[in-house]
Amino acid sequence: MRGPTNDVLPDGLALFTDLYELRMARAYLTLGMTARATFSLAVRALPASRNLLLACGVDDVIDLVLGLRFDAASLEALRRLGEFPEEFLAWLGSFRFSGDIDAVAEGTPVFAEEPLIEITAPIAEAQLLETLVMNQVGVQTLLASKALRVVLAAAGRTVVDFGGRRAQGIDAALAGARAFHVAGVAATSIVLAGVRHGIPVVGTMAHSFVQAFADEAAAFEAYASLYPDTTLLVDTYDTLDGVRRVIALAKALGPACRIRGIRLDSGDLAALARAARAMLDAAGLPQLQIFASGGLDEHRVAALIAAGAPIDAFGIGTEMSVSADTPALDLAYKLAAYAGEPRTKLAPGKRILPGRKQVFRAEGDVIGLAAEPLDGTPLLRPVVRGGARVAPPATLAEARRTAAEAVARLPPRLRALGPAEPAYPVALSPGLAATLAALQARHALSP
Amino acid sequence: MRGPTNDVLPDGLALFTDLYELRMARAYLTLGMTARATFSLAVRALPASRNLLLACGVDDVIDLVLGLRFDAASLEALRRLGEFPEEFLAWLGSFRFSGDIDAVAEGTPVFAEEPLIEITAPIAEAQLLETLVMNQVGVQTLLASKALRVVLAAAGRTVVDFGGRRAQGIDAALAGARAFHVAGVAATSIVLAGVRHGIPVVGTMAHSFVQAFADEAAAFEAYASLYPDTTLLVDTYDTLDGVRRVIALAKALGPACRIRGIRLDSGDLAALARAARAMLDAAGLPQLQIFASGGLDEHRVAALIAAGAPIDAFGIGTEMSVSADTPALDLAYKLAAYAGEPRTKLAPGKRILPGRKQVFRAEGDVIGLAAEPLDGTPLLRPVVRGGARVAPPATLAEARRTAAEAVARLPPRLRALGPAEPAYPVALSPGLAATLAALQARHALSP
Repeated sequence: MRGPTNDVLPDGLALFTDLYELRMARAYLTLGMTARATFSLAVRALPASRNLLLACGVDDVIDLVLGLRFDAASLEALRRLGEFPEEFLAWLGSFRFSGDIDAVAEGTPVFAEEPLIEITAPIAEAQLLETLVMNQVGVQTLLASKALRVVLAAAGRTVVDFGGRRAQGIDAALAGARAFHVAGVAATSIVLAGVRHGIPVVGTMAHSFVQAFADEAAAFEAYASLYPDTTLLVDTYDTLDGVRRVIALAKALGPACRIRGIRLDSGDLAALARAARAMLDAAGLPQLQIFASGGLDEHRVAALIAAGAPIDAFGIGTEMSVSADTPALDLAYKLAAYAGEPRTKLAPGKRILPGRKQVFRAEGDVIGLAAEPLDGTPLLRPVVRGGARVAPPATLAEARRTAAEAVARLPPRLRALGPAEPAYPVALSPGLAATLAALQARHALSP
Repeated sequence: MRGPTNDVLPDGLALFTDLYELRMARAYLTLGMTARATFSLAVRALPASRNLLLACGVDDVIDLVLGLRFDAASLEALRRLGEFPEEFLAWLGSFRFSGDIDAVAEGTPVFAEEPLIEITAPIAEAQLLETLVMNQVGVQTLLASKALRVVLAAAGRTVVDFGGRRAQGIDAALAGARAFHVAGVAATSIVLAGVRHGIPVVGTMAHSFVQAFADEAAAFEAYASLYPDTTLLVDTYDTLDGVRRVIALAKALGPACRIRGIRLDSGDLAALARAARAMLDAAGLPQLQIFASGGLDEHRVAALIAAGAPIDAFGIGTEMSVSADTPALDLAYKLAAYAGEPRTKLAPGKRILPGRKQVFRAEGDVIGLAAEPLDGTPLLRPVVRGGARVAPPATLAEARRTAAEAVARLPPRLRALGPAEPAYPVALSPGLAATLAALQARHALSP
């Protein structure tokens, strides 16, 4: 059952592409445009509600690119579209990515205009990858970046992913569970995500279980008899009555009681947690933990902690599973060089940083040309050369460590939920700025 | 390549479930609780920004449920979790859904608390389906409902799905393309979605193609030589200069010119569309259409049309692909009956309508008990009985027609982008209201 995320992807994955990518690829080939191009994947701007993004999905998508094949059924489907010559279908049939990929390490914090990935290959090859690369790096980076905020808000308390049912599809739920773990989420409720990615799997009980019994006490007793270290959901009818029933059960079990705690899923969580904590402590059950869930996001988690709510762990669903406040990134995959020459465009608000680039990280970041000798740690590393991996994908544990260490090194204001003032500094190197200005001037004169 | 959406789902799909579903199922079985339960899938409330939802994914998920199997690898993965007895694994290994499913027709408008699906089966079976059913019906209903708003805003102009690259994963992109088509979107840019679901596939060109050439005119000429009826993207450098180059190319081609039109992707789309239209008309090219894209949602489309912008078709990406203003629904799958008795819960703000139900639609809707003889058209229809389909899934064309006809029958205020005043009327029948009140009173006294 273990395997890379691409196990969840369909047969015919190579057709997961915008039609125009195929049209352009065929045009490049027919027109003899076989020179190498560099495409950069970067966000144009950080969302207003994000001080940083956590690059995620980079390793997955590189594996997808290296494994990308047009199978016979896909070629036949394209043939039926009736617009592509057999020569092009044959080229697709023998498609193997032959180029180079530079990428940041999985879990790396990134900022506006910084390439997460640069792909350099014959232009038709590199063009074909756009849709897949944007989709997969986009969703994983989006979800990891949201989860990081929840983890930071929880200030060391446990955060668990309850979002699979509300994620935008199964791919998002599974890739999301992995991205959340990279960002510091402890566990997931989705069995397949745990099995596939090696993430701890957790589960409590649902209201339906309580409802199926004649009374709540009987439901608790039955569940604890099968799962002695369970967490019991107490809000099906009246929350504090539910707590009383847990206490009664714990007392009846005596020293054998291994019940882990209670879960609150509705109502005024801070007040209920305080009341429940007092009742549990008074009953001599300080070891029972309080687990909270129900519509939580980073702001509600922060508010609960600020209010001193005695909550030990948070189950986060919908808001994290779709990155609800910011459900998409302004990610773009743009031509930065062709045939050795830097390229840009002038469309308003959508500049492209030309050329093969590097990000140099020290106190702040400098985006420079790859060939510039600048200070700082270079973030983009060679991962693929000539179609073959030259660096292995990060394990999940490595990516999680990369994220934790790099986030800890950032200025503290970046880890706040509100906008960092000032924002993290990102500058263009003199060489890159000069290249961009020269190109812009040339196109403004004679595009 | 054709097939139901579940082609995109992974091996081991049966493990796409929250761990607690398995724990509860095993508990029911061990405790001898084999009576039939009814679970209702409904949204608790409409999102503030939606006057209605378009039920979508219902047929897909029913096919998934009927095909759900725990394969050997899944059972082995569960065995390794170390908490389930062999007896339960054997039960899972022979799992076949044996119950009944009632559901609204794919593409039906639905409102708060109205069941989209009711599943009645031995409680362990019905419980196990929760995560999968919520995820798949949730994402497709979410995306169809957003797309309907864009289609209504476009007021008869063509709407095309450009969102695959920004969707939250590949499952969302493919299921989304289908949901968009149900809602009235004309075509998709994603080849795999078109091939799989039989949706028209469209594509223009990207900035990268223009950038790869020494000048824009050469790029246009080359592309139109291979794709004579293409749409040319004019905003890579200066939009109106781009339009002039299209006009020059059209004149050079003379009567053989089949260029379909131009695409605007940035800047002031209304002003640019007006200027471009005037230039094209003055050049004797009234047949060239204007296609607009770039950050569009239903409000921007409505504003462009209200401003009289001469735009013939809209390409909608990010905003529709993630339902950006409302990226999740408050969908719940709740126990409504067990062993022939209606059930509810009292958690604040989260009431459950008890019993097997029916939605009766006339001037407004009445949610009643399934057994009540009420006026209006019943929306829930028998789809599965005893584990076998008794009604075929709707074709995509049928679902699209269901949606169009049902939306046209709704009061016009429901089709506006702003909140309908008054909202669509949904009442509880006397029988359902009495059942709910009696249960609430009983639990408030002695839960």
